[in-house]
Amino acid sequence: MSEMNDPLKGYKGHAREALLKFGVKVWSDVRVVNDAGSVFEGVILPRSESFDDLHLVMKLKTGYNVGLHVDRIEHVTEVGYKEAKYKIPEKEFPSRPTLPKVTLLGTGGTIASRLDYRTGAVIPAFTPGELYGAVPELADICNLTTKKIFGVFSENMAMENYIVLANAIGEEIAAGADGIVIGHGTDTMGHTAAILSFMVQNSPVPIVLVGSQRSSDRPSSDAALNLIHSVRTAAHSDIAEVMICMFGPTSDRYGLLHRGTRCRKMHSSYRSTFRTISDIPLAMVSPTSFTYLHDDFRRRDKTRVPVIDPVYDDRTTILYYYPGMNPDLVDALVEKGYHGIVIAGTGLGHVNKPLYPAIKRATEAGVHIVMAVQTIWGFAQMYVYDTGRDLMDLGIVPLDNMIPETALMKLSWVLGHTRERAEVMRLMTTPVAHEITPREPHNGYLVMQGGLPETEEWVSGHWK
Amino acid sequence: MSEMNDPLKGYKGHAREALLKFGVKVWSDVRVVNDAGSVFEGVILPRSESFDDLHLVMKLKTGYNVGLHVDRIEHVTEVGYKEAKYKIPEKEFPSRPTLPKVTLLGTGGTIASRLDYRTGAVIPAFTPGELYGAVPELADICNLTTKKIFGVFSENMAMENYIVLANAIGEEIAAGADGIVIGHGTDTMGHTAAILSFMVQNSPVPIVLVGSQRSSDRPSSDAALNLIHSVRTAAHSDIAEVMICMFGPTSDRYGLLHRGTRCRKMHSSYRSTFRTISDIPLAMVSPTSFTYLHDDFRRRDKTRVPVIDPVYDDRTTILYYYPGMNPDLVDALVEKGYHGIVIAGTGLGHVNKPLYPAIKRATEAGVHIVMAVQTIWGFAQMYVYDTGRDLMDLGIVPLDNMIPETALMKLSWVLGHTRERAEVMRLMTTPVAHEITPREPHNGYLVMQGGLPETEEWVSGHWK
Repeated sequence: MSEMNDPLKGYKGHAREALLKFGVKVWSDVRVVNDAGSVFEGVILPRSESFDDLHLVMKLKTGYNVGLHVDRIEHVTEVGYKEAKYKIPEKEFPSRPTLPKVTLLGTGGTIASRLDYRTGAVIPAFTPGELYGAVPELADICNLTTKKIFGVFSENMAMENYIVLANAIGEEIAAGADGIVIGHGTDTMGHTAAILSFMVQNSPVPIVLVGSQRSSDRPSSDAALNLIHSVRTAAHSDIAEVMICMFGPTSDRYGLLHRGTRCRKMHSSYRSTFRTISDIPLAMVSPTSFTYLHDDFRRRDKTRVPVIDPVYDDRTTILYYYPGMNPDLVDALVEKGYHGIVIAGTGLGHVNKPLYPAIKRATEAGVHIVMAVQTIWGFAQMYVYDTGRDLMDLGIVPLDNMIPETALMKLSWVLGHTRERAEVMRLMTTPVAHEITPREPHNGYLVMQGGLPETEEWVSGHWK
Repeated sequence: MSEMNDPLKGYKGHAREALLKFGVKVWSDVRVVNDAGSVFEGVILPRSESFDDLHLVMKLKTGYNVGLHVDRIEHVTEVGYKEAKYKIPEKEFPSRPTLPKVTLLGTGGTIASRLDYRTGAVIPAFTPGELYGAVPELADICNLTTKKIFGVFSENMAMENYIVLANAIGEEIAAGADGIVIGHGTDTMGHTAAILSFMVQNSPVPIVLVGSQRSSDRPSSDAALNLIHSVRTAAHSDIAEVMICMFGPTSDRYGLLHRGTRCRKMHSSYRSTFRTISDIPLAMVSPTSFTYLHDDFRRRDKTRVPVIDPVYDDRTTILYYYPGMNPDLVDALVEKGYHGIVIAGTGLGHVNKPLYPAIKRATEAGVHIVMAVQTIWGFAQMYVYDTGRDLMDLGIVPLDNMIPETALMKLSWVLGHTRERAEVMRLMTTPVAHEITPREPHNGYLVMQGGLPETEEWVSGHWK
């Protein structure tokens, strides 16, 4: 029996045996009673690859999904059955020659999708026709092309993906795209935005990363709106930089455009998770307007020739300092052959004294060590205290207000070019894409304030 | 010549030779001309222990300190000399029998100080008499006792310091203190507050950590106000928990009391750097009032007997995940004999697939691995995706909304009691001091909102 035709799709082991015993299958409409006498009515959902063989997963009539431990199930009654359709009916994406050409590059994860309301199944949409079927507004914004370049969860992104992605962007620009959207999981979207800011320089057009924090089967999903905002930014905004376009405040009034090197995911589940760090966002974007908050960005100019520089040394790491850290951690990195270390130090860029000899051994062994701050906001200022100056004497170079994740990405990129110490440190401390800025604006801490027109959400304290 | 009477106090090597050559000394009023023709007028300051033997440090007439490379100095003219006094005239701390008894424990760093305005020298104040001389308001708040228990920069805090501190707190409570203040550097104040929340349970009185972000020689110093607020909290607040008391908004209108397990330093230099994470602060404190924002705190009750439980296993570490992380990092921790690892994962608590076999090897070798989120705000929710469930199957236990630093401190404390897996994980997931909370309040993300009366700073967007 092929996986595709398996009526117990995704169930295995104990849970599979239970379904067989109760005589039901995936997409059965069922009434389940458990050992506490609770009653659950809904549809049995398929499971994707999972090690859990203990739960039956149902979409309840209330719309919620629930996992029921099969050992606690007393009775199951099948009251109906209807298999879900797994395909969105495609509509032809309307071609309007006057609109800009946008390419959507898929890297994995669901960008948009459509819900089968009876079964609760989420049907991913990706081709222009499927996306048009799911989000018809797109056809009023641009002429859309989509290309799936790979499919990985964003926590699994690595060197080879960054290189493929940078080259793909170069090819789309060469082919005449007016803007590029990259569909990306949110976990490491900040890292990808940072490395692309170094690998793709001097872009003539906007390069916009987008994802969603809540999947399309939830009423509060940000997927469709983020997609509309990002495609609009790629097609029509004036900012020819690598950006992240994600949900802004709690309302769906607008999204925010964050600079690729200055953006970090700050909440594990909220939609407004992405925040510009130690600066304000580049712009607000709504389905009908842009509000530029910065004026020092690179303007769109299709005559500009991009520099695609997709090099990367993945023998780099982050050492996240905490009090009592033992020097054997630094020694371990030297022993394992790491070429570069970003220390995320405390305060203005500090570590404890017992680490000093190990750091000296590491720098003498040719390891390049730079300092960022784990406070996330603010500058590494290692000249303030003697301890900071001591660390600089040991060879550690402070990176001002470069955030630790961006520092790792830049160090990996720089070490892909050279391992000559003076040149490494010259490149690290010379900003390429605003990864270091001269100062933090008064409203650059924690929330983007001041630069933004006051909104109802903001004043009432619910902006999140 | 003794260190104390050395007229070139703190200068050594090259810089010392330069001072001798120019015929000037510490506290000389000088006019310096460098090789670029720039003129610097001010006082030569003493240097504390430093590896840097290349700079002469001056307090300029403008009030700023500057370090001048001695090789670039062309001329130095001494125009005067007046040695700074190194002692604050002590005033006897007034004893008022009706006021509460507060003990201030010193751990290092400057809590309060007095400035010699001519020379710019900062004179640390610590005895009750010195503190009264520097901050006379203290005498209206409590009867103060001070004890210096050690003197380290906070980045150098480690296991032995935590144990000494917890025991010292126990002794002060036994001796009848109505409240305890701990002077502490800000770099790792959050870590110390977290470990004390586990080592000192069931306290009958407030335990308040305090420090300053800007030293007393700057007009914007928060030192005196933080000290007043913290002493007032120890003497008069109703909250018998471990807290951090630091500057709140940009104005000096009030400070904030943060729960010891839920507080993190979020800016390298701002005064309002400490933030309650995924919750709102416990209270606002001003020189004249408390505004309680929570109601689920432990009340002051001097009949309560504290539990002092100062155990710690320092073979623990934080693995700060980033995309492309190589499994050799996990192997290295096993090889180095670590007992416990806090992974700060991306998103809801993720790492890449290549790490899975290494994590399996580590847990099978008896290493205890827990998961927190590097977004800082939000919950680790590892049951949402198959990847999270896979990691749990490998033995990783998610810690909900415990922040990574608190997770490290708790894991160190738990492993000081047991290394039996089921018991370790039971203790890790059972909250002791609100390190895990059931939910995040609507105003618990990024800034403390809503629970706070609206202030001018807040509405105008300058609260930082």
